[in-house]
Amino acid sequence: MKITKLTNSITLKRQLESGNEAQLKTVRQVLQDVRENGDQAVRKYSEMWDGFVLEDFRVSQFEIEEALNNFDPQLKKDLEEAAENIRYYHKAQKREDYKLPLADGSWLAQRIIPLDAVGLYVPGGSAAYPSSVLMNVIPAQVAGVRRIVITSPAGKDGKLPPAVLVAASILGVTEIYKVGGAQAIAALAYGTESIAPVDKITGPGNIYVALAKREVFGEVAIDMIAGPSEICVLADDTAYADEVAADLLSQAEHDPLACSVLITTSESLAEEVAEQVENQLNTLPREAIARQSIVNFGQIYIAENMKQAVEAVNSLAPEHLEIMTEKAQDVANEIRHAGAIFLGRYSSEPVGDYFAGTNHVLPTNSTAKFASGLNVDDFIKKSSVVYYSEKTWKENAPKIARLARMEGLEGHARAVESRGWEKGE
Amino acid sequence: MKITKLTNSITLKRQLESGNEAQLKTVRQVLQDVRENGDQAVRKYSEMWDGFVLEDFRVSQFEIEEALNNFDPQLKKDLEEAAENIRYYHKAQKREDYKLPLADGSWLAQRIIPLDAVGLYVPGGSAAYPSSVLMNVIPAQVAGVRRIVITSPAGKDGKLPPAVLVAASILGVTEIYKVGGAQAIAALAYGTESIAPVDKITGPGNIYVALAKREVFGEVAIDMIAGPSEICVLADDTAYADEVAADLLSQAEHDPLACSVLITTSESLAEEVAEQVENQLNTLPREAIARQSIVNFGQIYIAENMKQAVEAVNSLAPEHLEIMTEKAQDVANEIRHAGAIFLGRYSSEPVGDYFAGTNHVLPTNSTAKFASGLNVDDFIKKSSVVYYSEKTWKENAPKIARLARMEGLEGHARAVESRGWEKGE
Repeated sequence: MKITKLTNSITLKRQLESGNEAQLKTVRQVLQDVRENGDQAVRKYSEMWDGFVLEDFRVSQFEIEEALNNFDPQLKKDLEEAAENIRYYHKAQKREDYKLPLADGSWLAQRIIPLDAVGLYVPGGSAAYPSSVLMNVIPAQVAGVRRIVITSPAGKDGKLPPAVLVAASILGVTEIYKVGGAQAIAALAYGTESIAPVDKITGPGNIYVALAKREVFGEVAIDMIAGPSEICVLADDTAYADEVAADLLSQAEHDPLACSVLITTSESLAEEVAEQVENQLNTLPREAIARQSIVNFGQIYIAENMKQAVEAVNSLAPEHLEIMTEKAQDVANEIRHAGAIFLGRYSSEPVGDYFAGTNHVLPTNSTAKFASGLNVDDFIKKSSVVYYSEKTWKENAPKIARLARMEGLEGHARAVESRGWEKGE
Repeated sequence: MKITKLTNSITLKRQLESGNEAQLKTVRQVLQDVRENGDQAVRKYSEMWDGFVLEDFRVSQFEIEEALNNFDPQLKKDLEEAAENIRYYHKAQKREDYKLPLADGSWLAQRIIPLDAVGLYVPGGSAAYPSSVLMNVIPAQVAGVRRIVITSPAGKDGKLPPAVLVAASILGVTEIYKVGGAQAIAALAYGTESIAPVDKITGPGNIYVALAKREVFGEVAIDMIAGPSEICVLADDTAYADEVAADLLSQAEHDPLACSVLITTSESLAEEVAEQVENQLNTLPREAIARQSIVNFGQIYIAENMKQAVEAVNSLAPEHLEIMTEKAQDVANEIRHAGAIFLGRYSSEPVGDYFAGTNHVLPTNSTAKFASGLNVDDFIKKSSVVYYSEKTWKENAPKIARLARMEGLEGHARAVESRGWEKGE
């Protein structure tokens, strides 16, 4: 890894894949086709791109039971415990309505209402990510969403990965469709004969899925478009180089575009970590991916002091931040921008990816400056309620009418003034 | 207004202006130019489009005092009282961090952190909207945002409307720029020599501003792209036709694309409201605009019963909903989708536009199904924090490593397992 002296503010930003014209054209065509022709169009594109004919999109109870029966019981228990931890953390995010009394019997309120229906896209391909099922579904369930749908492209055998079905089953989600790609996003957004539409679509996908999500945004809500993963380790000379290196590599192995950064006040740690990264890379199964990431985007910065290091972290606004320093909690209190923070030697980042309870869907590419990880608020919306009594109205109507007239909106003023005429009461 | 029997679910959706290729090209050019040439480019476009030369973009203390000195003291008092009400309502939205203890000294936390800097765009043109200043700035202040910037195109006289300056001054906002259009959005997003960048941009604007906001989205956060205003009145035979009509017109006068809908169980009310709308239109200063809106998008629906009426409201998901029925609060409890709800005869919608305390920046075009009005949460973000003790790590590392390996991420498993080797401690 390159080692540099920290001077200016630093940035993680990479040019993200935004799709080309041809891809966008394809996606728009799929969206329109599914909107107009429903199931028939979904079937057509599944056959064309995923290579199998779907009679029934929906995963059967039999398929779910088959997956459960053949699944490693220990892994199932691990998933269940992770789900419990995630539920515990997210339950604390649940909010209540509030009602504020005003004078004369009037009041204002805010109501918290869960979305009616949400859809989670789970990408297909070689690997299965049951942890993503937990991380997306549980906040929606805690929010009180009644209908939660999962959709994912089936493999060549026409089946979904057992781990995904088991994770869904643990959570009680049974509306699962074997549909992928832009056609899945279209079906969720517009609905078809066999798939009712949802109000929000979450979950990652390939470039076609990402483009489709952008296109349907407005019609339905979407989560953020996640970029490649990032980790920043902030360490002093109390940290262990082999542990820091292992954590940097845990993100590098995700994606050639992943970004792993160490910021440290210790020159010797910097050198040892660089050496350890090289050593550990050699035996990593995903060495090729991790090496590309480390070579292109890996970086070690040596800071003059912890204050400078902290400022650099704030300018990075990394997705994941590990703090392995003396008085880690004091240092953490100075951090304003990071998606998720891991404190101390024993809070290795994968602890949060799988198990601790916090969410692993996090803001990337410096968007932690203004965005948050997935949470219960992403699955609710708020309505305000105003109740004015006659007395409150009478007292305030002249003020409201003046303000409306100042803005040139006479109709507004008249509406407020229209009350209270005697009407034979 | 057209009167129809309510049969199926109904919709408010209108085709919104999305900008043409030429507009988008212009906007992209402005954004790039400002990004590269800063103040010089901002100055160039202000001269070109707003018709004045800006030496100094920033509004001076002298200009603010001049506005304050010449402003109607009664109106200033009205604005101050409105600000106080808005602050009272939004303060209840402020959230605290939480920290959840786990076994063995471990814990999880969620931190709430305000954005560093936000920019509010205030449109220029003939009218001034000080109420928008209050509605955008106060939630940001309650959230704890340290730097709040306002930008707005100056008039031909090189000045901003006094009402906008007075509203800003009441709130203590003094960083105000006389810049409008796409160049203002560019300056806020990228920064220039004289305008430091912000993390989020809110506020409405013309099509160039809207396109520019969409383009910089991702680089910074933006609020929703608001559509034309909507009101839905849900009424039974206890409502007064003249009041309902006045409220319908208060939204119709905003925009030819505004949408005013009455859903009622009373046929006689339907007919009286139609008549009243016609009568009241004749004397409305903004008659031309309101008439276009009523003719094209106004609609009265007669429902068979309140249950059917409520379902229709939920399918509309209107921006504003007034409930003028018996037991209005019971009816309101059945509403799942509405940006803001106004209960009873005395809670005319403009009460909320200006004064009651709730926010008037609300989700339009049926997006109340998944979106909320502007609120304090729009100006904060959340970070999760994980602290695992050695004991918690030791107990859970094998589970986490198993889950990681199930997903094919050996590097994750190794990172978690890398701890706890003896290192001469």
